[in-house]
Amino acid sequence: MEQTLGIIGGGQLGRMLALAAIPLGFKVSVLDPTPNCPASVCALQTLGSFKDAAAIKQFASQQDFLTFEIESANAQALLSLQQDGKNLNPQPQMLALIKDKFAQKIFYQQHAIPCAQSYKVDSKNEIVRAADKIGYPFLLKARFDAYDGRGNALVRSAADIDDAMAKLGANNLYVEQFVPFVKELAVIVARDSQNNIRSYPVVETIHENNICHTVLCPAPISVEQSEQATQFAEQLVSHLEGAGVFAVEMFLSAQGEIIVNEVAPRVHNSGHHTLEANVTSQFEQHVRAVTGLPLGDPSLKVPAAVMMNILGERAGDANIEGLDAALAIDGVSVHFYGKAQTKLERKMGHITVVASDLATAQANALQAKKLLKI
Amino acid sequence: MEQTLGIIGGGQLGRMLALAAIPLGFKVSVLDPTPNCPASVCALQTLGSFKDAAAIKQFASQQDFLTFEIESANAQALLSLQQDGKNLNPQPQMLALIKDKFAQKIFYQQHAIPCAQSYKVDSKNEIVRAADKIGYPFLLKARFDAYDGRGNALVRSAADIDDAMAKLGANNLYVEQFVPFVKELAVIVARDSQNNIRSYPVVETIHENNICHTVLCPAPISVEQSEQATQFAEQLVSHLEGAGVFAVEMFLSAQGEIIVNEVAPRVHNSGHHTLEANVTSQFEQHVRAVTGLPLGDPSLKVPAAVMMNILGERAGDANIEGLDAALAIDGVSVHFYGKAQTKLERKMGHITVVASDLATAQANALQAKKLLKI
Repeated sequence: MEQTLGIIGGGQLGRMLALAAIPLGFKVSVLDPTPNCPASVCALQTLGSFKDAAAIKQFASQQDFLTFEIESANAQALLSLQQDGKNLNPQPQMLALIKDKFAQKIFYQQHAIPCAQSYKVDSKNEIVRAADKIGYPFLLKARFDAYDGRGNALVRSAADIDDAMAKLGANNLYVEQFVPFVKELAVIVARDSQNNIRSYPVVETIHENNICHTVLCPAPISVEQSEQATQFAEQLVSHLEGAGVFAVEMFLSAQGEIIVNEVAPRVHNSGHHTLEANVTSQFEQHVRAVTGLPLGDPSLKVPAAVMMNILGERAGDANIEGLDAALAIDGVSVHFYGKAQTKLERKMGHITVVASDLATAQANALQAKKLLKI
Repeated sequence: MEQTLGIIGGGQLGRMLALAAIPLGFKVSVLDPTPNCPASVCALQTLGSFKDAAAIKQFASQQDFLTFEIESANAQALLSLQQDGKNLNPQPQMLALIKDKFAQKIFYQQHAIPCAQSYKVDSKNEIVRAADKIGYPFLLKARFDAYDGRGNALVRSAADIDDAMAKLGANNLYVEQFVPFVKELAVIVARDSQNNIRSYPVVETIHENNICHTVLCPAPISVEQSEQATQFAEQLVSHLEGAGVFAVEMFLSAQGEIIVNEVAPRVHNSGHHTLEANVTSQFEQHVRAVTGLPLGDPSLKVPAAVMMNILGERAGDANIEGLDAALAIDGVSVHFYGKAQTKLERKMGHITVVASDLATAQANALQAKKLLKI
């Protein structure tokens, strides 16, 4: 009898999880509200919202193992499944923490993990008082529903506060120290059901308009910085609960300090290159972890890899162009997500390039990316 | 608009082709007579026989690109599709050649490719006369429908001839010189639609009961032998037609000579390790070739890889055991084929192990194989 793995959410992450779970012998299903969602070509899709408690419960009843690819899934429904004894991983308790960016900062402070100073603010007065403590510029941020840069405003002086509040709404805000970073880093950390932890090599992530554009692996930083980033990431994940893959995002300051920014309890854009570059991909690793299997080797099998996202450049029907030219470059792998509609800056796919050094991988990835349109 | 790729045959080869085609943006379908065939979890299955000309024609009408994973597909139907201008690769003309093992030998001789001396025989008298030329022992072989060792009989002396004929039937036989080989080798050769050729590193294949059990990559042979094997394989494929991946199987004789045994016009068991070990897997390579895309880099990204087949050891419902213990060994990847029923020596899946040297890979693969049951 095949064992069943249910994934709440069937976007590109669910698609790549399903592609990794099939060879391991699992029958994969996804719960997703969009007909023909990206994962539907390699998983049975149940049409339904991952916010809908009844839909989640019904879906879960058919699964031996359950996980999620989206942290906005209905946390209450997931908690109730867990209380019913479902094999659900990672643990949904932490979703409340993950969803509240301010609570995350407090959590890091409590566990002595370096992060940007942050203050909860409920009014303009409180914003001004927080500014007195941390100085300008600072970031005004929404505590909830903030991703891909939505929910952030840079406040350069007191004169910017009104505009920032207008942009973000007056409620559920916090003030965060502005860290003038020289690099953004990320570490994928995996934990199995026996609490064994294995981490992937540190990567540098490069964002534009707050959207991840490029991942460099290994990150061009010192060995000490790399060890420290790994240590902070593992320390953070050790305080979270459940089996699975977690992505920890960090800043490297001009002074060489590493500061944790945030964590996602799932496979992550900063780990897509692991499909080609690492012995065990983040997707297989997550499947192993949430199904009670042991973790695989996360180490690199190539000297260097670069990932670049293929982002939509217009709105309309998706239409792949330039694939032949891009694939003519050695070391290029292309992953499309099967989205029927393209949109400005929508994640439509990604390119990974492996090479004998980072400069070659980056040059080839950039060339491939320029050739590809969707 | 997604382009469609149709595969005639939906067994494990179709399954792994589909898994490789999905990230490249293709909508994949398979034609296969078995409900819930291995590829059905990642491709749209049309239920139908690959011997049925009408089913093939109907299936083909829905595909932008068409290929096959099984050389016993109806060659006449494929030829007729080709005449209708379908994008079908590789070219079906050669299927007549591939299906006739004696014709293959003549073909090699015509193109000066070293192979075992062979004689067509229509009677016991002709067998005896052939034996006079090549001596005992020799092989009596069926020209058609011979695979995984079926259709071969070793004739040690004239006294064995009657038994061998009884085993193989009296018709369509040929006599083949017995080559006392020290190793069996294989080379996967890919050709794109522009006739560019790229070859994978030579592997050693180890058969038991004429079924592939183990693949060692790279083959533990000399550089000269490896170059010669590659040269013969490319020479052979250059005389075949169409784009795709071809597997050339060879013997290394005790004298160090390389002798071509046979060719398969498709992805092959001797290339399964390329999923983990090579920059471009044989499956992605075949998809690229048959869809008019350029070939990828076939080179290794690990020092060594070993593949072992997971063969059924009993008859009955498939039931995976020992997966957790097998995956606890570093470098182990497991691929199940999703077959509901196991049978003695049926190919149910395979293990690939990557490592820093062949001995480690082989030891780890053997250990994993002993732990896994299905």
